[in-house]
Amino acid sequence: MESNMIFVPMVLAIVGLLFMFVKMSWVKKQAPGDERMQSISKSIKEGALAFLGAEYRLLLVFVVIAAIALGIISMLVDTTHWIIIVAFVLGAFFSALAGNVGMRIATEANARTAEAAKTSLPNALKVSFGGGTVMGLGVAGLAVLGLSLLFFIFVKMFVTGEASFYSEMTIALEALAGFSLGAESIALFARVGGGIYTKAADVGADLVGKVEAGIPEDDPRNPATIADNVGDNVGDVAGMGADLFGSYVATVLAAMVLGNYVIKDMSVNGPFTDSFNNMGPILLPLVIAGVGVLASIIGTFLVKISNNEAKEPQVQKALDTGNWIAIVLTLIASFGLIKYMLPETMSMKFFGEGYVEVSSMNVFWSACIGLAVGALISVVTAHYTSLGKKPVLDIVKNSSTGAATNIIAGLAVGMKSTFLSVILFAAAIYGSYTLAGFYGVALAASAMMATTAMQLAIDAFGPIADNAGGVAEMSELESHVRERTDILDSVGNTTAAVGKGFAIASAALTALALFAAYVTFTGIDGINIFKADVLAMLFVGGMIPVIFSALAMQSVGKAAMEMVKEVRRQFKEIPGIMEGTATPEYAKCVDISTKAALREMIVPGLITIITPIIIGLIFGAEPLGGYMAGVCVSGVMWAIFQNNAGGAWDNAKKSFEAGVEIDGKMEYKGSDAHKAAVTGDTVGDPFKDTSGPSMNILIKLTCLVGLVIAPILGGHSTEEGMAQLTTEEVVEVKNDEIKKVLVDLKVINEDMAKASVKTKTIPSGGGEPVITETVISGTKEEVLKKIDELKEEATSFHQTGDAAKKQ
Amino acid sequence: MESNMIFVPMVLAIVGLLFMFVKMSWVKKQAPGDERMQSISKSIKEGALAFLGAEYRLLLVFVVIAAIALGIISMLVDTTHWIIIVAFVLGAFFSALAGNVGMRIATEANARTAEAAKTSLPNALKVSFGGGTVMGLGVAGLAVLGLSLLFFIFVKMFVTGEASFYSEMTIALEALAGFSLGAESIALFARVGGGIYTKAADVGADLVGKVEAGIPEDDPRNPATIADNVGDNVGDVAGMGADLFGSYVATVLAAMVLGNYVIKDMSVNGPFTDSFNNMGPILLPLVIAGVGVLASIIGTFLVKISNNEAKEPQVQKALDTGNWIAIVLTLIASFGLIKYMLPETMSMKFFGEGYVEVSSMNVFWSACIGLAVGALISVVTAHYTSLGKKPVLDIVKNSSTGAATNIIAGLAVGMKSTFLSVILFAAAIYGSYTLAGFYGVALAASAMMATTAMQLAIDAFGPIADNAGGVAEMSELESHVRERTDILDSVGNTTAAVGKGFAIASAALTALALFAAYVTFTGIDGINIFKADVLAMLFVGGMIPVIFSALAMQSVGKAAMEMVKEVRRQFKEIPGIMEGTATPEYAKCVDISTKAALREMIVPGLITIITPIIIGLIFGAEPLGGYMAGVCVSGVMWAIFQNNAGGAWDNAKKSFEAGVEIDGKMEYKGSDAHKAAVTGDTVGDPFKDTSGPSMNILIKLTCLVGLVIAPILGGHSTEEGMAQLTTEEVVEVKNDEIKKVLVDLKVINEDMAKASVKTKTIPSGGGEPVITETVISGTKEEVLKKIDELKEEATSFHQTGDAAKKQ
Repeated sequence: MESNMIFVPMVLAIVGLLFMFVKMSWVKKQAPGDERMQSISKSIKEGALAFLGAEYRLLLVFVVIAAIALGIISMLVDTTHWIIIVAFVLGAFFSALAGNVGMRIATEANARTAEAAKTSLPNALKVSFGGGTVMGLGVAGLAVLGLSLLFFIFVKMFVTGEASFYSEMTIALEALAGFSLGAESIALFARVGGGIYTKAADVGADLVGKVEAGIPEDDPRNPATIADNVGDNVGDVAGMGADLFGSYVATVLAAMVLGNYVIKDMSVNGPFTDSFNNMGPILLPLVIAGVGVLASIIGTFLVKISNNEAKEPQVQKALDTGNWIAIVLTLIASFGLIKYMLPETMSMKFFGEGYVEVSSMNVFWSACIGLAVGALISVVTAHYTSLGKKPVLDIVKNSSTGAATNIIAGLAVGMKSTFLSVILFAAAIYGSYTLAGFYGVALAASAMMATTAMQLAIDAFGPIADNAGGVAEMSELESHVRERTDILDSVGNTTAAVGKGFAIASAALTALALFAAYVTFTGIDGINIFKADVLAMLFVGGMIPVIFSALAMQSVGKAAMEMVKEVRRQFKEIPGIMEGTATPEYAKCVDISTKAALREMIVPGLITIITPIIIGLIFGAEPLGGYMAGVCVSGVMWAIFQNNAGGAWDNAKKSFEAGVEIDGKMEYKGSDAHKAAVTGDTVGDPFKDTSGPSMNILIKLTCLVGLVIAPILGGHSTEEGMAQLTTEEVVEVKNDEIKKVLVDLKVINEDMAKASVKTKTIPSGGGEPVITETVISGTKEEVLKKIDELKEEATSFHQTGDAAKKQ
Repeated sequence: MESNMIFVPMVLAIVGLLFMFVKMSWVKKQAPGDERMQSISKSIKEGALAFLGAEYRLLLVFVVIAAIALGIISMLVDTTHWIIIVAFVLGAFFSALAGNVGMRIATEANARTAEAAKTSLPNALKVSFGGGTVMGLGVAGLAVLGLSLLFFIFVKMFVTGEASFYSEMTIALEALAGFSLGAESIALFARVGGGIYTKAADVGADLVGKVEAGIPEDDPRNPATIADNVGDNVGDVAGMGADLFGSYVATVLAAMVLGNYVIKDMSVNGPFTDSFNNMGPILLPLVIAGVGVLASIIGTFLVKISNNEAKEPQVQKALDTGNWIAIVLTLIASFGLIKYMLPETMSMKFFGEGYVEVSSMNVFWSACIGLAVGALISVVTAHYTSLGKKPVLDIVKNSSTGAATNIIAGLAVGMKSTFLSVILFAAAIYGSYTLAGFYGVALAASAMMATTAMQLAIDAFGPIADNAGGVAEMSELESHVRERTDILDSVGNTTAAVGKGFAIASAALTALALFAAYVTFTGIDGINIFKADVLAMLFVGGMIPVIFSALAMQSVGKAAMEMVKEVRRQFKEIPGIMEGTATPEYAKCVDISTKAALREMIVPGLITIITPIIIGLIFGAEPLGGYMAGVCVSGVMWAIFQNNAGGAWDNAKKSFEAGVEIDGKMEYKGSDAHKAAVTGDTVGDPFKDTSGPSMNILIKLTCLVGLVIAPILGGHSTEEGMAQLTTEEVVEVKNDEIKKVLVDLKVINEDMAKASVKTKTIPSGGGEPVITETVISGTKEEVLKKIDELKEEATSFHQTGDAAKKQ
């Protein structure tokens, strides 16, 4: 039966995009404020688009080079089709498009939010959250649309029934990996470049403006003010958006690859069939993603407040309500879909345990684990970085003895925060794998990512509110406007910290799912770190996040220094700037940040992309797996450490605004303790906004590059086209005993081969099955001979044993 | 033929110890200085011994608990004998004894060095280096003596020829692991406790003395001065000594375990024999260690200067000469020993490649790699932490814009320094493994550690010179005395940084060798991180060093605060203290540091020891392997990062003493930039002296605990005593074809079993061998049946194939 299930996510994605257009035009219809507000908003928008423009030019170069490289791969490797180039370019284009749409709406919504705040807080929330919704739906809608459209086309192209379903589907999914690689490449540029941009502008504006010239933040006389506001959009809107777009696509892709593997595992019992064109486990993650878009739309309707006098808790509650409704709806729908689309029990291969029967309910529980761990990691993140909690208070207390003790305390908080996060994360891996293998891990990640649209709407609303405050300040609006935008901004700060926890948790689970997909793609038996080359690469991988962080931190320093010099120059050379009679040259500062960001991200970007390729080509598939694991383990640790230390320092500094009690004495802004806290915050800035969040991209992109080059490394490639032959043969029943044989033959080169022959014998009357796996290596001739012998033995089984006994 | 080779290391160790006594009595015969100097020296000695005394009391509790735990293990597990308790206690005792001897001589040598410096720099060097030599030879001599003595006894006890050589030797080596565990436990107390002690005293003395009261460093009016000087001995002499004692013993032990594995591998071709009681590969590392002691003694004779006007370079050159002579002699001797004691070619099993013929020269090249990498990592460490080099100058430059930029620059230097160190380290693993398997890795570590006596003599000489300067200052000796001790101290600072590089490199290689020994002990097939539980534990392991560092840093902060309060109290309550008419209560400060250090090290110590036990018992052998790998990868990274960042900050601060040029302006002590650099140094202090060096112990102890509990986890344990049966059978020759079969049977529980049957077929006329490995899992009955079938098939080989063809 032809199934039309593939159209479901496509339609849901289109619904999401239509709703996005409705919301977009609604936001644009709102009053844009007076001329000054419009002019400031326009400057921010132009700066942001200038950054995007410059980024696109650099991207074009990158995309062309990468496309050529992919073309070469597709020529060298039978199982990689040139169409991967199209998928790659489309992935890059869709991600860039989503970022562009989000950035445009965010920079339009800021002045409109400020204007709405003149009369009503509920309206201001509606406008700013509306802007966030556009971003969220744009990202999720384009991701699901791109994936389902390409998957539809690739299945038509490649899954023709000429070869085995598994190998044809592998080719289709490998091409689809190009889409994910394209998306993640944009994320690299947006997240790392954006991170450098925003901190260079921020530090530059603060050092000269606040410290040297003594003018307040967001003061229109500061030439770097616009760049600073652009930075919020570039880093927190476009950067976060591209990061989650990448995670979203990669998670769904990895789950699809592992779904294909489930089908392969089940084919040991004969060809797999279901009423979804025999690809239920592959389609499931895509459909869940589509349903998540719909659930998110419903959730957005619930984000509203009615009281004009509302404070932070009410606003937070409105956001939480929307978020939880979206999550619960997704969970309910997932339950139905899992029951509907998956066989009641599946046979999955577990390393070292052989084939295990897994119920579809286990897959659902895996999804629940994903959602629970995502939520709990957010809670842990909030604990370590929130105002008034012990970790932040510890840093505050240690500020009284100077900057050094403040720094030590902040570092210790960041380091300690890894404990619970990693335990949760390890529990998620262990739990979801135990329930449903790596398919379970991928589904856990998919469930977590399903409500990305809602999550991103909440994330993007923060910077819009922050910018609205900036517009209000620069346009010298009445103070109650700023008070209202401050309420929204304050809630936005909390959601930003939680969002970072969500982003790293999702990136880590995504990386794991990709890692699992990589192992199945290469056809290796696992990644054994007791092999010295694998262990060596585990160490090298562990080092990469450390170096990447160091480079990112240094980049911020360098770029900020350039900004400082430019601002100083303008203060000196433009007469009347301090009196407000002359306009500073905002564009020059924007330009400096843009150029510095793009220039500085080239080296870390190249390290990320080229290192796995070099290691894969020189050492092979398994050491590259060790490298990927090293990057993930170390990357997760450094991400949590840097994000949370930075967040905690930031709030320790903020604590002084309301005054804090240290050893029985109240300390306020301007005290020595506050100065120490400012030093800590300055150290933490690149941690939390540049190097920390960059880790997400580093670990995902590393695994994705591995996945894309997997066909070159694994047994797929060969002369004679016989690289890897997997035959599922000989299902015999004799004396009620069932015997199944699976032969995996890998030709290493002209002379040598390696094969694995697995037989599973289920004794008559049930009972524990006996699994034997024979690994043979030697000359091709000898190995083929031995396989024949083993197959003979299997088909004539019990004869050997009986014959032996008679002797 | 009975070989007496085992007595060679024993005799060499005794020679080392005799020479130590000679040197010790020579040092003691030197003039101890005037009454005041003697009194100060006595206070330091008493403080140091007070710390040791308190440590021993805590240790006694620990040793009793651990001995009981080991007793329980030995009762539960057939292959673990209760004698492991004796080995454990002896290991703890020898390590403590070595530390005690070293600490006593160091605290006697300080005043004598100052006295000698009154007249002659060459003599001052001779005395201080003499003290170091006593420490070095005490550690190395006791280590080699303990290991060879116990090994001799255990071989007599267990290797009786009743069971297979491999399994009997495994029991002997498992008992020997107790000695290593005892030694490393002391190292935990000495290194972590000592690290907390020294920094608490240092920070406490500085904060109140230098900053609040404005009196110089080492001023006798400061109540914490003695504690500060005691700290140098506790941390840098006893801590470093115990650390290297532990590494030394563990490395040799791991190499012996892997030597046993080499013998097992070679037994596939029939029983292994050589003229060293058939245990050449096991004895080799022990003999090399013995020879290293002799080479170190010869090296110490070359450490001398003749010119009284010599400066740092000449002193450094004298140390370098002695060091290199010791290394070269060891290398030459190793070449001869390897050629003499190992078979010309060995058959070693490489994962995934089967059995490979390895020449004994490969083992020698592995040893060369170990020495080369040890030296190169020291060079890298020196580059990142030395005065006048780019990394330190970068930090200096960034001090001009305040503490925040100084901190960021220092963090970046530490992070970047991981790059070359890790690449070198990965190259060492890869190179030595490729040459000679994990035996090669262990021999690389052994070669690096062979000159531990010399290395430690150089390391311990620094703190003695530093203390001599303190004694000179406190006794108000003439300034030329201090100038001379300062020359020695300055050289000591450089050797300390390099020594830290050596310590972490050796700890890392040791951990790897232990890790390899662990895998062979448990009998698992490797550590596959594609299994979810293993991967989850890899993450958990990666988190432990981060948490450990955070706890250690916090401990320093807490202990320093207590010290600050006590010093403040004494200044306030003891009249005449500032005028020098009343003596401060030094002992109270010593007591505070002692108690705080011991109290604060309990939690990190427990985490280190208990976590691997819990993981091993709950999840099993392979996940514990993943945990160990996680701790090693992350631990090495954090050790290098923290050590080098701390060292670089320290020297960035010191740069200001001679004056530095920043942006064309000279900056000196007391400038704002210098203050920023002081902040950096304060952050770096716990990094480089507490948490950084603690990582060494953490990674070694983790692997060692794993090794000791391996028998509980692996296939050794079982009812029926049939846990792991390894039979090496059926060597048949038919039609010139040679066939060998190796059966490994593991009984999992009453019902289930797992077996591996390996056959190696060498075709007639040579050519590539065909190796097949069949892994069978299922009910015990079925597995045994299948093994019989496979054996039948092997003995009657070609019949099945021929028969099949006829059908």
